[in-house]
Amino acid sequence: MKDFPEPVSRLIAELKELPGIGAKSAQRITFHILRASVDDAQHLARAIQNVKEKIVSCSVCNNVTDDDPCAYCSSPDRNSRLICVVEEPPNVVAIEKTHEFKGRYHVLMGSLSPLSGIGPEQLKIAGLLSRLVDGEVEEVILATNPNVEGEATAIYLSRLIKPLGVKVTRIAMGIPVGSELDYADEVTVGKALEGRREY
Amino acid sequence: MKDFPEPVSRLIAELKELPGIGAKSAQRITFHILRASVDDAQHLARAIQNVKEKIVSCSVCNNVTDDDPCAYCSSPDRNSRLICVVEEPPNVVAIEKTHEFKGRYHVLMGSLSPLSGIGPEQLKIAGLLSRLVDGEVEEVILATNPNVEGEATAIYLSRLIKPLGVKVTRIAMGIPVGSELDYADEVTVGKALEGRREY
Repeated sequence: MKDFPEPVSRLIAELKELPGIGAKSAQRITFHILRASVDDAQHLARAIQNVKEKIVSCSVCNNVTDDDPCAYCSSPDRNSRLICVVEEPPNVVAIEKTHEFKGRYHVLMGSLSPLSGIGPEQLKIAGLLSRLVDGEVEEVILATNPNVEGEATAIYLSRLIKPLGVKVTRIAMGIPVGSELDYADEVTVGKALEGRREY
Repeated sequence: MKDFPEPVSRLIAELKELPGIGAKSAQRITFHILRASVDDAQHLARAIQNVKEKIVSCSVCNNVTDDDPCAYCSSPDRNSRLICVVEEPPNVVAIEKTHEFKGRYHVLMGSLSPLSGIGPEQLKIAGLLSRLVDGEVEEVILATNPNVEGEATAIYLSRLIKPLGVKVTRIAMGIPVGSELDYADEVTVGKALEGRREY
Protein backbone atom coordinates (compact mmCIF):
# COMPACT_ATOMS: atom_id res chain seq x y z
CA MET A 1 0.00 0.00 0.00
CA LYS A 2 1.78 3.14 1.12
CA ASP A 3 3.88 4.75 3.83
CA PHE A 4 2.79 7.26 6.47
CA PRO A 5 0.43 10.07 5.37
CA GLU A 6 2.39 12.77 3.54
CA PRO A 7 2.56 15.33 6.42
CA VAL A 8 3.98 12.62 8.69
CA SER A 9 6.55 11.44 6.12
CA ARG A 10 7.55 15.02 5.44
CA LEU A 11 8.19 15.83 9.11
CA ILE A 12 10.21 12.61 9.49
CA ALA A 13 12.27 13.62 6.42
CA GLU A 14 12.82 17.17 7.76
CA LEU A 15 13.94 15.89 11.16
CA LYS A 16 16.35 13.40 9.58
CA GLU A 17 18.23 16.38 8.12
CA LEU A 18 19.17 17.55 11.63
CA PRO A 19 22.56 16.56 13.06
CA GLY A 20 22.51 13.38 15.15
CA ILE A 21 18.94 12.46 14.17
CA GLY A 22 18.59 9.15 12.32
CA ALA A 23 15.52 7.54 10.77
CA LYS A 24 14.33 5.94 14.02
CA SER A 25 14.78 9.10 16.11
CA ALA A 26 13.01 11.18 13.46
CA GLN A 27 10.05 8.81 13.57
CA ARG A 28 10.00 8.80 17.37
CA ILE A 29 10.08 12.60 17.54
CA THR A 30 7.35 12.87 14.89
CA PHE A 31 5.00 10.61 16.85
CA HIS A 32 5.88 12.49 20.02
CA ILE A 33 4.80 15.71 18.29
CA LEU A 34 1.61 14.02 17.03
CA ARG A 35 0.75 13.04 20.60
CA ALA A 36 1.72 16.47 22.02
CA SER A 37 -0.80 19.28 22.39
CA VAL A 38 -1.26 21.69 19.49
CA ASP A 39 0.17 24.41 21.76
CA ASP A 40 3.36 22.49 22.49
CA ALA A 41 3.93 21.77 18.80
CA GLN A 42 3.21 25.41 18.00
CA HIS A 43 5.77 26.54 20.59
CA LEU A 44 8.43 24.38 18.98
CA ALA A 45 7.59 25.62 15.47
CA ARG A 46 7.56 29.24 16.65
CA ALA A 47 10.88 28.80 18.46
CA ILE A 48 12.45 27.66 15.18
CA GLN A 49 10.97 30.59 13.26
CA ASN A 50 11.88 33.01 16.05
CA VAL A 51 15.51 32.03 16.10
CA LYS A 52 15.77 32.74 12.37
CA GLU A 53 13.84 36.01 12.60
CA LYS A 54 15.46 37.48 15.67
CA ILE A 55 19.00 36.14 15.79
CA VAL A 56 21.70 37.87 13.77
CA SER A 57 25.45 37.72 13.70
CA CYS A 58 27.13 40.49 15.73
CA SER A 59 28.77 42.90 13.27
CA VAL A 60 31.79 43.23 15.56
CA CYS A 61 32.49 39.73 16.94
CA ASN A 62 30.15 37.47 14.86
CA ASN A 63 28.55 35.97 17.96
CA VAL A 64 24.85 35.12 17.79
CA THR A 65 22.77 37.99 19.16
CA ASP A 66 19.28 39.45 19.10
CA ASP A 67 20.73 42.98 19.28
CA ASP A 68 23.63 44.18 17.13
CA PRO A 69 26.30 44.80 18.39
CA CYS A 70 25.98 42.01 20.93
CA ALA A 71 25.90 42.43 24.70
CA TYR A 72 29.58 41.45 24.99
CA CYS A 73 30.70 44.02 22.42
CA SER A 74 28.51 46.85 23.69
CA SER A 75 28.99 46.41 27.44
CA PRO A 76 31.04 49.27 28.94
CA ASP A 77 32.08 46.94 31.77
CA ARG A 78 34.23 44.67 29.66
CA ASN A 79 37.92 45.14 28.99
CA SER A 80 38.43 46.26 25.38
CA ARG A 81 42.18 45.64 25.56
CA LEU A 82 41.59 41.90 25.65
CA ILE A 83 40.01 39.77 22.90
CA CYS A 84 39.32 36.09 23.30
CA VAL A 85 39.10 34.29 19.94
CA VAL A 86 36.86 31.23 19.73
CA GLU A 87 35.62 29.00 16.95
CA GLU A 88 31.86 28.93 17.52
CA PRO A 89 29.20 30.89 19.48
CA PRO A 90 28.67 28.13 22.09
CA ASN A 91 32.36 28.48 23.01
CA VAL A 92 31.60 31.99 24.28
CA VAL A 93 29.07 30.55 26.72
CA ALA A 94 31.63 27.92 27.83
CA ILE A 95 34.12 30.68 28.68
CA GLU A 96 31.50 32.91 30.31
CA LYS A 97 30.62 30.09 32.67
CA THR A 98 34.11 30.28 34.22
CA HIS A 99 33.48 33.91 35.28
CA GLU A 100 37.25 34.31 34.68
CA PHE A 101 37.19 36.42 31.55
CA LYS A 102 35.95 40.00 31.33
CA GLY A 103 37.30 41.03 27.92
CA ARG A 104 35.72 40.98 24.48
CA TYR A 105 35.21 38.06 22.12
CA HIS A 106 35.76 37.24 18.49
CA VAL A 107 34.01 34.24 16.95
CA LEU A 108 35.78 32.80 13.90
CA MET A 109 32.76 30.69 12.85
CA GLY A 110 34.90 27.62 12.35
CA SER A 111 38.49 26.48 12.25
CA LEU A 112 41.02 25.83 9.50
CA SER A 113 40.27 22.44 8.00
CA PRO A 114 41.83 21.84 4.57
CA LEU A 115 40.16 18.42 4.39
CA SER A 116 36.71 20.02 4.68
CA GLY A 117 37.71 22.84 2.32
CA ILE A 118 37.79 25.44 5.09
CA GLY A 119 40.66 27.85 4.50
CA PRO A 120 41.36 31.28 6.04
CA GLU A 121 38.88 32.95 3.64
CA GLN A 122 35.99 30.94 5.13
CA LEU A 123 36.74 32.20 8.64
CA LYS A 124 36.02 35.64 10.13
CA ILE A 125 39.69 36.60 10.28
CA ALA A 126 39.64 39.94 8.42
CA GLY A 127 37.21 41.33 10.99
CA LEU A 128 39.51 40.23 13.80
CA LEU A 129 42.54 41.93 12.23
CA SER A 130 40.57 45.15 11.70
CA ARG A 131 39.83 45.22 15.42
CA LEU A 132 43.56 45.23 16.14
CA VAL A 133 44.74 48.12 13.93
CA ASP A 134 43.82 51.03 16.22
CA GLY A 135 46.22 49.79 18.91
CA GLU A 136 43.64 49.54 21.69
CA VAL A 137 43.87 45.75 21.95
CA GLU A 138 46.86 44.60 23.97
CA GLU A 139 46.32 40.88 24.03
CA VAL A 140 44.56 38.29 21.91
CA ILE A 141 43.78 35.02 23.68
CA LEU A 142 43.47 32.15 21.22
CA ALA A 143 40.80 29.85 22.65
CA THR A 144 40.24 27.69 19.60
CA ASN A 145 39.69 24.00 20.36
CA PRO A 146 42.78 22.01 21.45
CA ASN A 147 42.51 19.64 18.49
CA VAL A 148 44.32 19.56 15.13
CA GLU A 149 42.14 22.16 13.41
CA GLY A 150 41.97 24.52 16.39
CA GLU A 151 45.71 24.29 16.92
CA ALA A 152 46.40 24.95 13.23
CA THR A 153 44.05 27.92 13.40
CA ALA A 154 45.79 29.27 16.52
CA ILE A 155 49.23 28.98 14.92
CA TYR A 156 47.97 30.63 11.73
CA LEU A 157 46.40 33.51 13.66
CA SER A 158 49.44 34.04 15.89
CA ARG A 159 51.60 34.52 12.78
CA LEU A 160 49.20 37.15 11.48
CA ILE A 161 48.70 38.99 14.78
CA LYS A 162 52.18 39.10 16.30
CA PRO A 163 53.59 41.37 13.56
CA LEU A 164 50.92 43.91 14.56
CA GLY A 165 52.64 44.27 17.93
CA VAL A 166 49.79 42.61 19.83
CA LYS A 167 50.57 40.03 22.49
CA VAL A 168 49.18 36.63 21.50
CA THR A 169 48.43 33.91 24.04
CA ARG A 170 47.02 30.43 23.77
CA ILE A 171 44.79 28.80 26.38
CA ALA A 172 46.62 26.07 28.29
CA MET A 173 46.18 22.43 27.46
CA GLY A 174 44.35 21.90 30.70
CA ILE A 175 41.53 20.78 28.47
CA PRO A 176 41.95 17.15 27.45
CA VAL A 177 43.63 17.09 24.02
CA GLY A 178 41.37 15.74 21.28
CA SER A 179 38.29 16.88 23.12
CA GLU A 180 36.32 20.07 22.46
CA LEU A 181 35.86 23.24 24.50
CA ASP A 182 32.12 22.69 24.85
CA TYR A 183 32.62 19.38 26.56
CA ALA A 184 35.02 20.58 29.25
CA ASP A 185 33.70 21.56 32.66
CA GLU A 186 34.00 25.20 33.68
CA VAL A 187 36.82 24.61 36.17
CA THR A 188 38.92 23.03 33.43
CA VAL A 189 38.12 25.87 31.03
CA GLY A 190 39.00 28.31 33.83
CA LYS A 191 42.34 26.57 34.41
CA ALA A 192 43.03 26.72 30.71
CA LEU A 193 42.42 30.49 30.68
CA GLU A 194 44.52 31.03 33.79
CA GLY A 195 47.42 28.93 32.46
CA ARG A 196 47.66 30.61 29.04
CA ARG A 197 51.20 31.01 27.70
CA GLU A 198 52.76 33.50 25.30
CA TYR A 199 53.11 32.20 21.77
CA MET B 1 27.28 37.80 32.11
CA LYS B 2 24.49 35.75 30.56
CA ASP B 3 23.62 32.73 28.53
CA PHE B 4 22.63 32.58 24.86
CA PRO B 5 20.21 35.25 23.56
CA GLU B 6 16.66 34.39 24.61
CA PRO B 7 15.44 33.00 21.23
CA VAL B 8 18.45 30.65 21.14
CA SER B 9 17.95 29.46 24.74
CA ARG B 10 14.26 28.97 24.08
CA LEU B 11 14.83 26.78 21.02
CA ILE B 12 17.40 24.72 22.94
CA ALA B 13 14.85 24.29 25.76
CA GLU B 14 12.08 23.29 23.31
CA LEU B 15 14.30 20.74 21.58
CA LYS B 16 15.38 19.22 24.90
CA GLU B 17 11.73 18.27 25.47
CA LEU B 18 11.84 15.91 22.50
CA PRO B 19 12.52 12.21 23.12
CA GLY B 20 16.18 11.20 22.83
CA ILE B 21 17.43 14.81 22.64
CA GLY B 22 19.75 15.89 25.46
CA ALA B 23 21.26 19.29 26.23
CA LYS B 24 24.22 18.87 23.86
CA SER B 25 22.11 17.59 20.96
CA ALA B 26 19.61 20.41 21.48
CA GLN B 27 22.43 22.96 21.28
CA ARG B 28 23.94 21.29 18.21
CA ILE B 29 20.59 21.24 16.42
CA THR B 30 19.91 24.87 17.37
CA PHE B 31 23.20 26.04 15.87
CA HIS B 32 22.58 23.85 12.83
CA ILE B 33 19.26 25.69 12.37
CA LEU B 34 20.99 29.05 12.89
CA ARG B 35 23.44 28.18 10.11
CA ALA B 36 20.72 26.78 7.83
CA SER B 37 18.90 28.94 5.28
CA VAL B 38 15.72 30.73 6.36
CA ASP B 39 13.85 28.50 3.87
CA ASP B 40 15.14 25.27 5.39
CA ALA B 41 14.22 26.40 8.89
CA GLN B 42 10.81 27.51 7.63
CA HIS B 43 10.24 24.09 6.02
CA LEU B 44 10.95 22.37 9.32
CA ALA B 45 8.66 24.73 11.26
CA ARG B 46 5.89 24.32 8.68
CA ALA B 47 6.26 20.52 8.72
CA ILE B 48 5.66 20.58 12.48
CA GLN B 49 2.60 22.83 12.12
CA ASN B 50 1.32 20.82 9.16
CA VAL B 51 1.42 17.53 10.98
CA LYS B 52 -0.74 18.97 13.75
CA GLU B 53 -3.15 20.67 11.33
CA LYS B 54 -3.61 17.86 8.81
CA ILE B 55 -3.16 14.61 10.71
CA VAL B 56 -6.07 13.11 12.60
CA SER B 57 -6.76 9.77 14.17
CA CYS B 58 -8.78 7.41 11.97
CA SER B 59 -12.24 7.08 13.53
CA VAL B 60 -12.26 3.35 12.75
CA CYS B 61 -8.75 2.05 13.48
CA ASN B 62 -7.04 5.05 15.25
CA ASN B 63 -4.13 5.05 12.79
CA VAL B 64 -2.69 8.45 11.82
CA THR B 65 -4.27 9.75 8.63
CA ASP B 66 -4.87 12.92 6.64
CA ASP B 67 -8.24 11.57 5.48
CA ASP B 68 -10.79 9.96 7.82
CA PRO B 69 -11.40 7.02 7.58
CA CYS B 70 -7.82 6.12 6.67
CA ALA B 71 -6.71 4.49 3.44
CA TYR B 72 -6.49 1.06 5.09
CA CYS B 73 -10.04 1.25 6.45
CA SER B 74 -11.60 2.69 3.29
CA SER B 75 -9.85 0.56 0.67
CA PRO B 76 -12.26 -1.90 -1.02
CA ASP B 77 -9.29 -4.15 -1.84
CA ARG B 78 -8.53 -5.17 1.73
CA ASN B 79 -9.99 -8.16 3.53
CA SER B 80 -12.49 -6.99 6.14
CA ARG B 81 -12.63 -10.41 7.74
CA LEU B 82 -9.13 -10.00 9.13
CA ILE B 83 -7.97 -7.37 11.69
CA CYS B 84 -4.36 -6.98 12.74
CA VAL B 85 -4.04 -5.30 16.16
CA VAL B 86 -0.87 -3.25 16.79
CA GLU B 87 0.28 -0.89 19.54
CA GLU B 88 1.33 2.20 17.59
CA PRO B 89 0.91 3.70 14.09
CA PRO B 90 4.53 2.95 13.04
CA ASN B 91 3.80 -0.76 13.60
CA VAL B 92 1.31 -0.58 10.72
CA VAL B 93 4.10 0.55 8.40
CA ALA B 94 6.36 -2.26 9.67
CA ILE B 95 3.69 -4.82 8.77
CA GLU B 96 2.86 -3.17 5.42
CA LYS B 97 6.52 -3.50 4.42
CA THR B 98 6.16 -7.29 4.46
CA HIS B 99 3.47 -7.14 1.72
CA GLU B 100 2.06 -10.25 3.44
CA PHE B 101 -1.02 -8.76 5.06
CA LYS B 102 -4.04 -7.51 3.16
CA GLY B 103 -6.56 -7.19 5.98
CA ARG B 104 -7.55 -4.21 8.14
CA TYR B 105 -5.75 -2.74 11.16
CA HIS B 106 -6.58 -1.61 14.67
CA VAL B 107 -4.14 0.63 16.55
CA LEU B 108 -4.41 0.41 20.34
CA MET B 109 -2.31 3.56 20.92
CA GLY B 110 -0.18 1.87 23.54
CA SER B 111 0.05 -1.30 25.57
CA LEU B 112 -0.99 -2.30 29.07
CA SER B 113 1.59 -0.98 31.52
CA PRO B 114 0.43 -0.80 35.15
CA LEU B 115 3.79 0.75 36.15
CA SER B 116 3.18 3.69 33.80
CA GLY B 117 -0.47 3.88 34.82
CA ILE B 118 -1.73 2.59 31.49
CA GLY B 119 -4.73 0.32 32.00
CA PRO B 120 -7.33 -0.97 29.53
CA GLU B 121 -9.27 2.34 29.71
CA GLN B 122 -6.28 4.22 28.25
CA LEU B 123 -6.18 1.95 25.18
CA LYS B 124 -8.50 1.94 22.16
CA ILE B 125 -10.07 -1.38 23.09
CA ALA B 126 -13.77 -0.46 23.05
CA GLY B 127 -13.47 0.55 19.39
CA LEU B 128 -11.89 -2.80 18.57
CA LEU B 129 -14.67 -4.76 20.26
CA SER B 130 -17.34 -2.72 18.47
CA ARG B 131 -15.76 -3.77 15.15
CA LEU B 132 -16.27 -7.41 16.06
CA VAL B 133 -19.98 -7.42 16.97
CA ASP B 134 -21.50 -7.62 13.48
CA GLY B 135 -19.84 -11.00 12.86
CA GLU B 136 -17.96 -9.96 9.71
CA VAL B 137 -14.52 -10.31 11.30
CA GLU B 138 -13.30 -13.92 11.39
CA GLU B 139 -9.79 -13.51 12.78
CA VAL B 140 -7.96 -11.01 14.96
CA ILE B 141 -4.16 -11.16 14.72
CA LEU B 142 -2.51 -9.79 17.85
CA ALA B 143 0.69 -8.10 16.69
CA THR B 144 1.55 -6.22 19.88
CA ASN B 145 5.27 -6.16 20.74
CA PRO B 146 6.79 -9.41 22.05
CA ASN B 147 7.76 -7.80 25.39
CA VAL B 148 6.14 -7.87 28.82
CA GLU B 149 3.62 -5.10 28.08
CA GLY B 150 2.76 -6.32 24.60
CA GLU B 151 2.36 -9.88 25.81
CA ALA B 152 0.11 -8.80 28.70
CA THR B 153 -1.98 -6.76 26.26
CA ALA B 154 -2.29 -9.72 23.88
CA ILE B 155 -3.42 -12.05 26.68
CA TYR B 156 -5.92 -9.46 27.95
CA LEU B 157 -7.39 -8.94 24.46
CA SER B 158 -7.61 -12.64 23.68
CA ARG B 159 -9.72 -13.15 26.79
CA LEU B 160 -12.09 -10.39 25.66
CA ILE B 161 -12.30 -11.43 22.02
CA LYS B 162 -12.51 -15.25 22.15
CA PRO B 163 -15.97 -15.23 23.86
CA LEU B 164 -17.24 -13.25 20.83
CA GLY B 165 -16.59 -16.32 18.68
CA VAL B 166 -13.76 -14.66 16.77
CA LYS B 167 -10.52 -16.56 16.12
CA VAL B 168 -7.59 -14.91 17.89
CA THR B 169 -3.98 -15.48 16.80
CA ARG B 170 -0.65 -14.12 18.01
CA ILE B 171 2.35 -13.35 15.77
CA ALA B 172 5.19 -15.85 16.16
CA MET B 173 8.10 -15.16 18.49
CA GLY B 174 11.42 -16.70 17.59
CA ILE B 175 14.90 -16.12 16.22
CA PRO B 176 15.05 -13.14 13.80
CA VAL B 177 15.81 -14.17 10.22
CA GLY B 178 19.48 -13.61 9.37
CA SER B 179 20.43 -13.69 13.05
CA GLU B 180 22.21 -16.50 14.88
CA LEU B 181 20.98 -18.77 17.64
CA ASP B 182 23.98 -17.78 19.80
CA TYR B 183 22.94 -14.14 19.88
CA ALA B 184 19.34 -14.74 20.91
CA ASP B 185 18.41 -14.66 24.61
CA GLU B 186 17.15 -17.83 26.25
CA VAL B 187 13.53 -16.65 26.39
CA THR B 188 13.54 -16.11 22.62
CA VAL B 189 15.19 -19.47 21.96
CA GLY B 190 12.60 -21.04 24.27
CA LYS B 191 9.77 -19.36 22.29
CA ALA B 192 11.36 -20.53 19.04
CA LEU B 193 11.44 -24.12 20.28
CA GLU B 194 7.92 -23.93 21.62
CA GLY B 195 6.59 -22.51 18.35
CA ARG B 196 8.37 -25.04 16.13
CA ARG B 197 6.52 -26.22 13.05
CA GLU B 198 6.72 -29.48 11.13
CA TYR B 199 8.82 -29.31 7.97
